[in-house]
Amino acid sequence: MDPTDPVALTRALIRCPSVTPEEGGALSLLADALSAAGFECTRVDRAGVPNLFARWGTRGHARTFGFNGHTDVVPPGDPAAWTHDPFGADLHDGEIWGRGAVDMKSAVAAFVAAAVDCVRDTPPDGAIVLTITGDEEGPSVDGTRALLDWMASAGERMSACLVGEPTCPETFGEMIKIGRRGSLTAHLTVRGVQGHAAYPHRAVNPLPAMARLMDRLASHSLDDGTDHFDPSTLAIVTIDTGNPATNVIPADTRGSVNIRFNDRHSGASLTEWIEAEATRADAEFGTRTEVEIKLSGEAFLTPPGPLSELVANAVAAETGIRPVLSTTGGTSDARFVKDHCPVVEFGLVGRGMHAVDERVPEGEVRALKAVYARILRDYFAG
Amino acid sequence: MDPTDPVALTRALIRCPSVTPEEGGALSLLADALSAAGFECTRVDRAGVPNLFARWGTRGHARTFGFNGHTDVVPPGDPAAWTHDPFGADLHDGEIWGRGAVDMKSAVAAFVAAAVDCVRDTPPDGAIVLTITGDEEGPSVDGTRALLDWMASAGERMSACLVGEPTCPETFGEMIKIGRRGSLTAHLTVRGVQGHAAYPHRAVNPLPAMARLMDRLASHSLDDGTDHFDPSTLAIVTIDTGNPATNVIPADTRGSVNIRFNDRHSGASLTEWIEAEATRADAEFGTRTEVEIKLSGEAFLTPPGPLSELVANAVAAETGIRPVLSTTGGTSDARFVKDHCPVVEFGLVGRGMHAVDERVPEGEVRALKAVYARILRDYFAG
Ligand SMILES: [Zn+2]
Ligand SMILES: [Zn+2]
Repeated sequence: MDPTDPVALTRALIRCPSVTPEEGGALSLLADALSAAGFECTRVDRAGVPNLFARWGTRGHARTFGFNGHTDVVPPGDPAAWTHDPFGADLHDGEIWGRGAVDMKSAVAAFVAAAVDCVRDTPPDGAIVLTITGDEEGPSVDGTRALLDWMASAGERMSACLVGEPTCPETFGEMIKIGRRGSLTAHLTVRGVQGHAAYPHRAVNPLPAMARLMDRLASHSLDDGTDHFDPSTLAIVTIDTGNPATNVIPADTRGSVNIRFNDRHSGASLTEWIEAEATRADAEFGTRTEVEIKLSGEAFLTPPGPLSELVANAVAAETGIRPVLSTTGGTSDARFVKDHCPVVEFGLVGRGMHAVDERVPEGEVRALKAVYARILRDYFAG
Repeated sequence: MDPTDPVALTRALIRCPSVTPEEGGALSLLADALSAAGFECTRVDRAGVPNLFARWGTRGHARTFGFNGHTDVVPPGDPAAWTHDPFGADLHDGEIWGRGAVDMKSAVAAFVAAAVDCVRDTPPDGAIVLTITGDEEGPSVDGTRALLDWMASAGERMSACLVGEPTCPETFGEMIKIGRRGSLTAHLTVRGVQGHAAYPHRAVNPLPAMARLMDRLASHSLDDGTDHFDPSTLAIVTIDTGNPATNVIPADTRGSVNIRFNDRHSGASLTEWIEAEATRADAEFGTRTEVEIKLSGEAFLTPPGPLSELVANAVAAETGIRPVLSTTGGTSDARFVKDHCPVVEFGLVGRGMHAVDERVPEGEVRALKAVYARILRDYFAG
């Protein structure tokens, strides 16, 4: 198989059943192809999660361009629901079918193909680093984080990094992500004192405190957005009590809110706010509220500058479309990379990812390789 | 067995295993004893629920004193947890042990004994009616209601009625109930539109509407009480959503409130209020809220007057204690009787009812018969 053919490489990767946390042969396949092309490859597995680090050029070079991606995929569900085998990589009417066709085996194939081309044709004065994890769809604790931890300890670096996640809502080329909102979930347990519904003064009902607290959290305007970010949002996602007896005041109740926040906030500032509101409700109702915070990632922004210009110009040159610089969407591993170096994201049209009959047009995969290849040329020429 | 001995009659009734909805031989035993004493007895069973109507004197007499009670009992639970057989009616240290000793086989025995005494000793110029149901602890749909329905169709009446439920918190004689608060449960289902927590503007989250609605319902002061009633109370008893995914805004959520209300309110007025608040929240949040009302009983009051005076004077004469006229506590079948005639409640000390090792002092049962007997004498003398 020619590793510079992104369609062939995508199809080979789709045939690896790499449902998180299975490696499925995907990283081995890439390591073989990259080693053959002169890349130094290291498996950086941690806690059972497979990860691949590959570098061409000198370790720690001041001009090291990085790509980040993942080969793991979400489960296909019932294979019978698919028109074509989710791990078959069938080609039909110019489309490659299969789980991971969009998210994101094609993009991994595209940046591997571009990187191999780059070092074969005109070996750059610099280095190229590829960090590819087998756990982005899962807990993400021992995936890209493990790669970055290992790099720090091994003297490896990236000067700039592009994450190849799908970024375009409808049309290829229309959007680059230069940041992401943060995500935090707060689990609240309000505790009171159980009692009979006919004698509420002898009980401490946790539910009025929960209702008041949730109303305050949900009706608070966190911000109006920034130049680069949408407004932060808070969604109550559940409130549960599980009391079947209508004559009983329950002892406790639980609720959860999910916050998507821009760089006006941090996990710490939001935790402080939620805890203050919980304390206020407790003072009003005589309850005791426990707050448990799960921070998925802080908000981050790579302000428009050399890296986003480099990528946007390459996209515009190859597609004729000037992409917008966006911070919309959920989280990605860019939230980890941003602590290492400037990071932006550019990839395919995301429609169809995680769904049945996931598939990608061949032409889009070739165009993505062309964009990545131009980014590398321009970066090392710059 | 001497039907005028309330202790012997109580023990005989306890030996009937009349756990709702089982008759257990209790009503048959009473029908036999009352028939022998000259009462006309009719079984008014409905939908499998056994009920006994007994009258001495002329049907529809303008001076008919009524007693109401029940022979069904709540389950004893694990008999091994009891010191004495819950259906053994053992006598120990002056106490009768067993399920129903307090609630309320003793009171049924006491009013039957008093009634038989009354018609034997000095047959009154009037009538005595006893309505005894086998379902007060269960759904109560075909118990006292069936008796009252049948009475209406059969031309039977009561001019006044005493319900023999336990009414005294600590000391025998201290409390008469002249009314009860009503009880209503509202089940609220707030419906929105499911969506992703990162894009709340594309969803309609039902939870903020639920929180606001519940906060408003719970923080509204229904009233400050009246001369005869405690303030009405509202307790949120549950809110449930069952959404395990913190990145998903759920489509709907359910919650329930239980209201104990005095005679400033009615089922209709409270329903109107709750529906108005639901409509207001729906207008604010774009949700659709369904309100389902379960009315257990309206509030009722028999204002202090001839009947409560009659009973209070008899209690004071027999116990030396002047009882307070109260409307506290849960619901009882008096909520049905009040639509037929003035009704008050007087009975034993309620401590121990529905619990393991339920038992009653023999002396208290004899004293209760004495109070009931004096009520009958005074009523027919008046
Ligand atoms: Zn992905
Ligand atoms: Zn009872």
